[in-house]
Formats: sequence, C-alpha cells, structure tokens
Amino acid sequence: MLTYDFHNINGPIYLYLYNCIKKDIISGKLKSGEKLPSKRSFAKNNGISTITIQNAYDQLVSEGYVFTLPKRGYYVSEIINSMNTVSKSNISYDIHVPSEKNEFIYDLSYNGTDPENFPFSVWAKVTRDVMSNRKNDLMKSAPSGGIRELRESIANHLSSFRGMIVDPDQIIIGAGTEYLYGIITQLLGKNKKYVIENPGYKKLMKIYKHSEIDCGFAAMDNNGIMISELDRTKAEVAHICPNHHFPTGITMPASRRYEILAWANQDNKRYIIEDDYDSEFRSEGKPIPTLFSIDGCEKVIYINTFSKSLTPTIRISYMVLPAHLANKFYETMSFYSCTVSNFEQYTLAQFINQGYFEKHINRMRLFYMRQRKNVIQEIENSKIGNIFTIIENDSGLHFILKVKEGIGSENFHNLLRENGIHINSLSDYYFSGGDDAKDMYIINYSMISKNKMREILDIMENIIKL
Amino acid sequence: MLTYDFHNINGPIYLYLYNCIKKDIISGKLKSGEKLPSKRSFAKNNGISTITIQNAYDQLVSEGYVFTLPKRGYYVSEIINSMNTVSKSNISYDIHVPSEKNEFIYDLSYNGTDPENFPFSVWAKVTRDVMSNRKNDLMKSAPSGGIRELRESIANHLSSFRGMIVDPDQIIIGAGTEYLYGIITQLLGKNKKYVIENPGYKKLMKIYKHSEIDCGFAAMDNNGIMISELDRTKAEVAHICPNHHFPTGITMPASRRYEILAWANQDNKRYIIEDDYDSEFRSEGKPIPTLFSIDGCEKVIYINTFSKSLTPTIRISYMVLPAHLANKFYETMSFYSCTVSNFEQYTLAQFINQGYFEKHINRMRLFYMRQRKNVIQEIENSKIGNIFTIIENDSGLHFILKVKEGIGSENFHNLLRENGIHINSLSDYYFSGGDDAKDMYIINYSMISKNKMREILDIMENIIKL
Repeated sequence: MLTYDFHNINGPIYLYLYNCIKKDIISGKLKSGEKLPSKRSFAKNNGISTITIQNAYDQLVSEGYVFTLPKRGYYVSEIINSMNTVSKSNISYDIHVPSEKNEFIYDLSYNGTDPENFPFSVWAKVTRDVMSNRKNDLMKSAPSGGIRELRESIANHLSSFRGMIVDPDQIIIGAGTEYLYGIITQLLGKNKKYVIENPGYKKLMKIYKHSEIDCGFAAMDNNGIMISELDRTKAEVAHICPNHHFPTGITMPASRRYEILAWANQDNKRYIIEDDYDSEFRSEGKPIPTLFSIDGCEKVIYINTFSKSLTPTIRISYMVLPAHLANKFYETMSFYSCTVSNFEQYTLAQFINQGYFEKHINRMRLFYMRQRKNVIQEIENSKIGNIFTIIENDSGLHFILKVKEGIGSENFHNLLRENGIHINSLSDYYFSGGDDAKDMYIINYSMISKNKMREILDIMENIIKL
Repeated sequence: MLTYDFHNINGPIYLYLYNCIKKDIISGKLKSGEKLPSKRSFAKNNGISTITIQNAYDQLVSEGYVFTLPKRGYYVSEIINSMNTVSKSNISYDIHVPSEKNEFIYDLSYNGTDPENFPFSVWAKVTRDVMSNRKNDLMKSAPSGGIRELRESIANHLSSFRGMIVDPDQIIIGAGTEYLYGIITQLLGKNKKYVIENPGYKKLMKIYKHSEIDCGFAAMDNNGIMISELDRTKAEVAHICPNHHFPTGITMPASRRYEILAWANQDNKRYIIEDDYDSEFRSEGKPIPTLFSIDGCEKVIYINTFSKSLTPTIRISYMVLPAHLANKFYETMSFYSCTVSNFEQYTLAQFINQGYFEKHINRMRLFYMRQRKNVIQEIENSKIGNIFTIIENDSGLHFILKVKEGIGSENFHNLLRENGIHINSLSDYYFSGGDDAKDMYIINYSMISKNKMREILDIMENIIKL
C-alpha cells in the first residue's frame, strides 16, 4: 500500500498527494499498469478524506499520468519509456541580452522625442474621452487595414498637408514601418529584386535580408537615386526617400521623378516605395508633391509614420497603396489582424480630427527650426567654427556638418566616441564606397540644446588641439 | 513673353503662377532649355511684385522643373521625354473592400469581449497614472523584446498561474500572435516543415502559407496530435494547442506530452510551438503543467496572448523562448523595433502588478462559468433538448454541441445561417476529412446571454419542424 507523510503540509492536501504520486510515476517507483489503492482504503489508511484522494486522482487522470477502468479502479499510464529519452539532456544556457546602457553623454545619432515636447495633457484628455465615449467601438475587432475613422483622418491630413488625394480604403495602418515593409513584400512578391539607396538607411537592408529577400543598393547623384544604377542592379522594386533623402537630405527634382516613374512603367513587375518619413518637418514654403501624387500608373506605394511627428514609442505607421494593390490586399491579406490597438487608433483619429495634430506639428516645426538655428549658431560662433561647413539641404530633422579635410578623419571620429559623443559620419551610411564622406557628420539636433551643443564643440576643440 | 491672367485668383498669387508655369512645362508649351522671362520684366508686364515671381521660380527650381544659371537666369529643365512615357496610361481601378457588415443576428463563431466586461474604469485610471508618472519612460525606445517591466510582470504571472519559472529575458512581446509567428519562423528557419493540428485553427495555415512556408496538418486522436502523423508528414515544427485544443477542447495527457517531447528530441531541427491561447479560463482545479515546463531540452516555444483575457482589440501577445533561441533572437533580431506602443506596455505592466489583472481574470472566470451554465441549461431545458449532446471537455470559452444524426446535417447548417445564426460546425475546422463532424457545432458562448440562447433554440426548433 502506498503511504506518504501527511504531516506539515503547506497548501491543499490533494495537491500534495497529486505531487507525491506523480513523482513516483516519473521516477518509476510506480510502474505502468500498476493499480493505485482504492480511494476508500487509501483514505482510511492515511486518515484523510476520500474527496481529497478523488481530487488528486482526478488531476492525475486529466493529465494522463493515471487512467481509470470502469468499476475496477485507477491504474498508472505508460509514459516511462518516452520520458527517459527526454529528461536526460538537461541543457542550460545563460541568456545574453545586449546591453541597453548608453555610455554616450551626447547623442547626435538619432532623433527621439523629448518628454517636454510630447503633448501629454491633450493626449491624456483624448484617451480619456475615447475610453468614456467609444466603449463599443473599442471592443469591436478592427478591419485588417485599420479603423475606418483613423484612415479617414489620415486621408484628410494627406490632402491638406501633402496635396495628396487618396481614398481612405487605400490606406493601411500597421504597427511601425518595419511591419508594413513585411506586408509590402508579401503584396509585391518576395522573389523580386529590391534596391535601396546608397548611402541610405542601413537597417532597411537588414530587414529585407532577414526576410530572405534579395536586396541591393544603387548609387545616388545630386538628384537622388540614379536610373542607370537601377538598371545595373536589375532592380524591380526601388525603395527610396525622394522627398528628403536620409541622410544626405537630397530632394529629388521633378525631372528625376518623372524618369523614375518612367523606369517603373517600363515593366509591370516594377514598383517604387516612397518613404516620406519626416515630411511634416521639412522646409518652409510649399512642399514638393510626392511621387505618389504625380504617378499616373499605380506604380508608387507611399509610406509614412507618426514616429517622427509624435513619438517613436507609439507604434503607428501607414501606407497608401495604388488601387490595384489595395484590391490585392483585400483579396489575399485581409485575414490578418490589424497590429495596432483600437485604443490608440481611436485616440489618434480624434487627436487629428480635433486639430491637435496640426497644432502639435506647427509647434514642433517652430521648435525644431529654433533648435536648428541655435545649434548652427553655436557651431558658427565657436572658436573652431572655421573648420566646419554646414550642408543644410532641405531641413527636416538633421543637417550635415562637414569638417575640414584631414581633421574630420577616422581618428577624430573615434576620439569623439571615446569622449562620450555618439555621432555618425555620412560614410557610416554607405554600403560600399563613401570614403570621402568620412569627414561629413550627421547632426540629429531634435534633442540637442544650445548648451549641449556648446559642450560638444568644446570637446571637439580639445580633440583637435591634441 | 509669358502672360497669364491674374484676375480672380484664389489663394496666393505665387502658387497660381507656379501652377501655370508648371502646367506649361508639362504640356510642352514651354520647351526644355527655354529661358523664362527675367523677374523684373515679368513683374512689370503683369503688374505683380518681383517677390511673387521669385517665390514661384524658387518653388519650380526646388522641384526641378526649372534650373538657374548664375547671372543668366531661369531655364526650363529637360523632363518632357520621360514624362510622356508615363502620363499616358492613366489606370483607374475601383477599390473593392470586403463588406464589414455582419448580416448575422446571433454570432456563435467567435469570442469577443462585451464592453460590459472590459475593466474600462481601472484601465483608464492606470493609463492616466502611467501618463502622469512615466513621461520619460514613455518616450524612451523599448528594447526589441518589449519593456522590461512588462516582461517581469508576465514572468510573475506565469509563475503564479501556470507554475512556469521563466527568466523575463526569455519573454518577447509583440503586436499579436500573428506577428509573433513571423518572428518564430525567422528564428527557426522558413525552410522547415511546419505541421498543425487537423482539425485546427484554419487561419494558422493561411498565415504560414502566405509567408511561403511549407505547412501541413496532422491528424489527432483523443490524446491530441499523433506522433505517427508527425512522422508521416515529416514535420520539423509542430504547432499545437496541447492544453486545450481548438476546437475539440482535447487536453493532451502527460503520456503524449512526453512522447511529443521525445519526438522533438530525436532531431535537433525539431521544435514544438505550444499555443496556450485561453489558459486563464480553463477548468477548475489545478491546471495542467505546460509542455514548456516539463521540457528539459529547450524544444518548446510557449506562446500566449491578452486577446482572450482582456480584449482582442488590445494587440499584446508574448512568447517564451528556450534560452538558446532567446540568445539567437538577441544576436540576430534585436534590430527590430518592438511593435507594441510603450503606452500600452506600461499600462498593462502596472495593471498586472497592482493585482487588477488577477481580479479581472477571476471575475471573468466566474462570469464565463455562469454564462456556460446558463447556455447549457437553456439547451437542456429546451423542447428540442433531446436532440443535443453537449461535449464539454475541459471548459475554456467554448463547448461542442452534437446534434442528433440526420438533423445536424449540411442542410441544417445552411438553414441556421439563413436565419441569422453564425455558427461553425466542427467539420469547418478540418483540412481534410471530418465528414462525421458535420453534426458537431462549436458554441462560443462568451457573448451569448440566456435570452439570446433561447432565441437561437427557437430558431433551431422551427428549422427542425420544417
């Protein structure tokens, strides 16, 4: 007869009993086919209730350690053979998480959002409104492309800010542009040749390669990506930033725009992905019409994000598909769930519709212009101002600082990093070549105050003196 | 000399002039290389200011329609040739969006969250707290795997509710399980053979196939997916719901669990994806230990979601990776941005940490048990109660209603749909076979009240009488 020590038990007795029997089954002490004691005799021998035993047996049965034969009782199942092959090799790896600590004091390498600049009180107010007034909508599954209301708000925004006339049904919402790139490659086909700009956004190459997509790069001239390079690389999909190239800041002129549209139109497999990542903060005056707007042949997918205009930590991006691709999306991919929460979709829609987004953009545009002016002034007024040339191109959220030849070398760059300044040179954005871009530095100024810039310049001065 | 009519202009004059000239360039009226009138003479002839003309010319230059030669003036660029090839074929498709309208009055086909059941006031309170107190954290980019705090909360939850001891670094957060499947296939490799359960969750097959993954299905017996079927299909990755299979409700017993772990352990390419989609709402008593818990060989990826426990419209899911896969994730995929907004990650973390999640689950578990009891009672007490058998298996959020042979046929099913009842039969979940499952219906009861169930039964009665 099975006996266990029922003194000093923590927690329910049935659980203790269940664990004892299970352990004996796993260890082989109780053999498969062996009959367990009847509930009544087991209860009597151990001074516990039959219900406790019933509960323990039930759990063992439901997990398959034990089986019952009607009117005969409980038996141990056959699980030992397969178990032995498993439990031997107990692997145990340590997990190596990449360090998140930022050892840099000054970060010119990216544009985040300063908490001071996020419209917390309005966002909180709109969130509260949405939660009180849209309870039913919040619980209703969103269509695959996103909530209708948000797509309408974005269509209106694109019309007034970019002069783009689009049907809300052409707009697809997703949790970040990286997610949307995945949707695009599924729509256009993964067996196509994708080509991005050189220099360009290196992460893009990583993303394509990681999705097992053949991705190359094409050189640019002063007008943007070169058609001859698209031909040379046998590109079928050109992923470009024609409105404000990152990081050179080049704007593609109309002539090249029509050339690249003509290139796309020569083969029905060809497409252009137009990444308009920082359109809200570009130069004064009338912004340049998008490729999407002047495309008469449904060759352009327009993609944009709220990461720059609001904060990268709210993951909402969108793309505008040409009509035939929108139809393909609805026919073949509408089974996917939308990746953005209803709560944030409705909040953003209301934030746009009530005019808060426009106000925020205007405020931030002024802020960034002032920021830019201050940072440039600091550079020009510094004692070492004469070693710099500022290449502005079409504003946005960064400019290029060219350091006098010989000074802005690799050694200079290393010393900057050693002194706590995280900064990228233009050459860091080249997939090949770009040696002559080593003395050009990208200044992302959105989080750099006048004082911080002065400190950075002091450090640079000290390095040069060495 | 260029002349335009400057009377009755809406909006700025420079924009009007810009549009006129642009139109003339595109139409070919102004030829490439042609010199534009000097600002001064143009202004004089048309009675407008030179600044207006300067602005229009500047815009044309910045868009590339016009170029300048220093001290000589403005000339039309060469863009005509490439344009002609483009603008001819003006395609215009209509967009066909799948109808969202639900023509069903009664929906037993899925489990949503009733707005009455979502903890709006607490969620709103926690959201407000997070926005007031975590401003800096909310603006800081999250690590690829998700915010540390949320991963710790989930690790604690898994420990107390599932008896799983996991390192928070093994947990990866993503915007929905569909997104995480994509991460898993990138981690394990897309050239593997994936196999899912038959019957099973059909969308899963669509997702795999759409990612160009070789996906098959393996038959089940009463203990879950069969090892012989995994062998027959040459499976390398088995994607299964061992704890509560959808839709049969089968729980895999310990014996099969050890068998499938042994199967995975026979080849180092093999893995198991354990989908624990509705674990929070399963039967009373001690829940069954997960495959992940008893896996000693790092063969199991555990995946779960807050879609069932909170609402499908908040897109937060997570997976727990074995240590070596977690390391692979950090080494090769940590460049990806996390797809869930910081705002919702911090809100959920605090919601769990302050005990609200546990309270909510307990409340909902009671609610669903009551709901289940009521729905079953209605069925048993109805005039046609004798034609039904209820197959409960291990609760969760659905059960199976078996309709007497002959009645529950295809015709019956069609008539239900025609009468506004959206219901799936078990056979709908079969990839092949399943003809004998045509009279088994899946009852997702989370949104079905007693009254609604009575109405459904009345409709059924009328259909049977026909």
